[in-house]
Amino acid sequence: MARNVLTPPTRLLLGPGPSNPAPLVSAAMAAPLVGHLDPYFLQVMDETMADLRTVFGTANHHTIPMSGTGTAGLEAIMFNLLEPGDEAVVGVVGYFGQRLVELAQRAGARVRRIEAPLGEVIAPERVKEQLDRRPPNLVALVHAETSTGAHQPLDEIGKMVRDAGALFVVDCVTSLGGMPVDVDRRLIDAAGSCSQKCLGAPPGLGPVTFGPRAMAAVQGRRSKPATWYLDLQLLFQYWGESGGPRDRAFHHTAPVANLYGFREALRLTLEEGLDARYARHRAAHERLVDGLGALGLSLFTPEANRLPMLNVINIPEGVDDLTVRKRLLERGIEIGAGFGPLKGTAWRVGLMGTNATTEVVDRFVGELAAVLKTT
Amino acid sequence: MARNVLTPPTRLLLGPGPSNPAPLVSAAMAAPLVGHLDPYFLQVMDETMADLRTVFGTANHHTIPMSGTGTAGLEAIMFNLLEPGDEAVVGVVGYFGQRLVELAQRAGARVRRIEAPLGEVIAPERVKEQLDRRPPNLVALVHAETSTGAHQPLDEIGKMVRDAGALFVVDCVTSLGGMPVDVDRRLIDAAGSCSQKCLGAPPGLGPVTFGPRAMAAVQGRRSKPATWYLDLQLLFQYWGESGGPRDRAFHHTAPVANLYGFREALRLTLEEGLDARYARHRAAHERLVDGLGALGLSLFTPEANRLPMLNVINIPEGVDDLTVRKRLLERGIEIGAGFGPLKGTAWRVGLMGTNATTEVVDRFVGELAAVLKTT
Repeated sequence: MARNVLTPPTRLLLGPGPSNPAPLVSAAMAAPLVGHLDPYFLQVMDETMADLRTVFGTANHHTIPMSGTGTAGLEAIMFNLLEPGDEAVVGVVGYFGQRLVELAQRAGARVRRIEAPLGEVIAPERVKEQLDRRPPNLVALVHAETSTGAHQPLDEIGKMVRDAGALFVVDCVTSLGGMPVDVDRRLIDAAGSCSQKCLGAPPGLGPVTFGPRAMAAVQGRRSKPATWYLDLQLLFQYWGESGGPRDRAFHHTAPVANLYGFREALRLTLEEGLDARYARHRAAHERLVDGLGALGLSLFTPEANRLPMLNVINIPEGVDDLTVRKRLLERGIEIGAGFGPLKGTAWRVGLMGTNATTEVVDRFVGELAAVLKTT
Repeated sequence: MARNVLTPPTRLLLGPGPSNPAPLVSAAMAAPLVGHLDPYFLQVMDETMADLRTVFGTANHHTIPMSGTGTAGLEAIMFNLLEPGDEAVVGVVGYFGQRLVELAQRAGARVRRIEAPLGEVIAPERVKEQLDRRPPNLVALVHAETSTGAHQPLDEIGKMVRDAGALFVVDCVTSLGGMPVDVDRRLIDAAGSCSQKCLGAPPGLGPVTFGPRAMAAVQGRRSKPATWYLDLQLLFQYWGESGGPRDRAFHHTAPVANLYGFREALRLTLEEGLDARYARHRAAHERLVDGLGALGLSLFTPEANRLPMLNVINIPEGVDDLTVRKRLLERGIEIGAGFGPLKGTAWRVGLMGTNATTEVVDRFVGELAAVLKTT
């Protein structure tokens, strides 16, 4: 059957991502393509690596967007750093911690979980306990648990993990660009994020960074990783090794348009300034908490653990989840459903990238008030 | 350092892909994003699956673009269909056959290669010989070997492979949309392609199709595949099983903009009509062969084996490869270098998607003549 030209509706994207890209980012997605070995594109790659380092807070050479979504970036981390028989300790306070467990297991590792109730985070002592029990090859934590809105503190943990001789891996899918990740200061050995949340590009890329200790583990592997597409050593034959020959060996055809959009999103992020951007995300969150309070609504996540960019709201007694989300969508606003055990009892409201503004919050709170009044 | 707004140069992309997307495809890449669970997006997903089936020539329900480049699609095929200890027979007539070997090995399989010299293809008898020797789990061939310009005939092979109880896998990265792949007619159990060649979308998606025999192998696995990101059973919880519940469980955030562009590229492909599109690719190829002949240039690939969309041209004695490609690029035209053993002795000229026209061929031949005259 014949189809019409694609004409998507306009949405204010206040779910867990994607957020709405800035106009220049969207324009870059449609810019004229060049080949993946074009001198112009090699320059875009180098600029992207440099700006991504700044956003991650790292001097790591091995800092690139993987050619897949954030999940692919995290799979790349686990599959390159772990070998069959290795051991990983993973913090699980929601779905995305559980996903790290699954990825580590697929890479052949045995996994010890550290768990905490929904909304809570992992205390550093609990990591120490596991390190003392038996040092693993790798410790992984989720910086911003998108299923519960919880912010995992990282400050003391990097040193403990390093002292135990393990690698420290952080899932910063939801935090990067909206709050400090500070890879080098926090002694993080590898971190993975996404393009479509606080950085404000469309989904499709998985930015990752690998420090020298992580790369030493990659180079010292006993076996090839069980992935060819995400094999770091092959990928850096294309992206270029630091100081090494940059003959840009073909590995796969880079997603040129996505890289254009991502390069623009990084440029706009740094043009705004990281501190200003973090403050903007924080201010939008505070405005939301106040606005919700005025409506008599509360947040699920304990105040001490709250993320600015992902807000989990308790659905009031007697209010129907689906009806409210449907009516908001009719008014052009997407919010996220509760995830897993919170499905039906909570909403997830993302204030990410261009949407982390008081104007957006005011519009949302106003529309939510109107919808609640009529349901 | 502060960066300028991204302003890529305009290139006529006559390398091995990406090709130049049609204006409506580029526009779709920049269209307003919706969430990956938005009712509008679920409709785009269903339309994409339906149109992709038509292009592949299949009724297979399990037909989707994977969220990575063509390489990811092929990795998904090998990692879902093969288990450690399985055996695969792979035809190798160039780099991309060798890549299938590597992917099968990473999936844990033992591989028997069937090789032929560069420019040649695998005769069906040679596949039969291997099947008779010992039936493998899987036979994989490259339909269009992008490194040599060779077209692998497939017609008799599917039946042989099926009779031997093996799965027939085809890499149609370069052929899909430019010549018939005919998955069902040829008894192909799984095939993988890309978005950026004859289909004319930007790179970033790996369209794949899996038939009932392939899905039976997936469902009968002894172990989980060594990939979570590309795990078919998880992916179809999001894309929806045929006739089954379509609760669209979250697996990863779909690359919405890429799906928009790909949906438009499929729409334009079917609007043109597959037969008309194949004829256009064929006519452009013939025009190129004539034009090159008039310049005294010849093709590397024997006439009987030539692909229409990827032309490997012998570099004439005394002509410097790099100089010519650089001068063409200065005139706004990208062509590809020779690959592997053909580096420096051949060029690769892609006539794919919007670029498979006599007008484009005439422009290219004219510019090449001008460049050759002055070098």
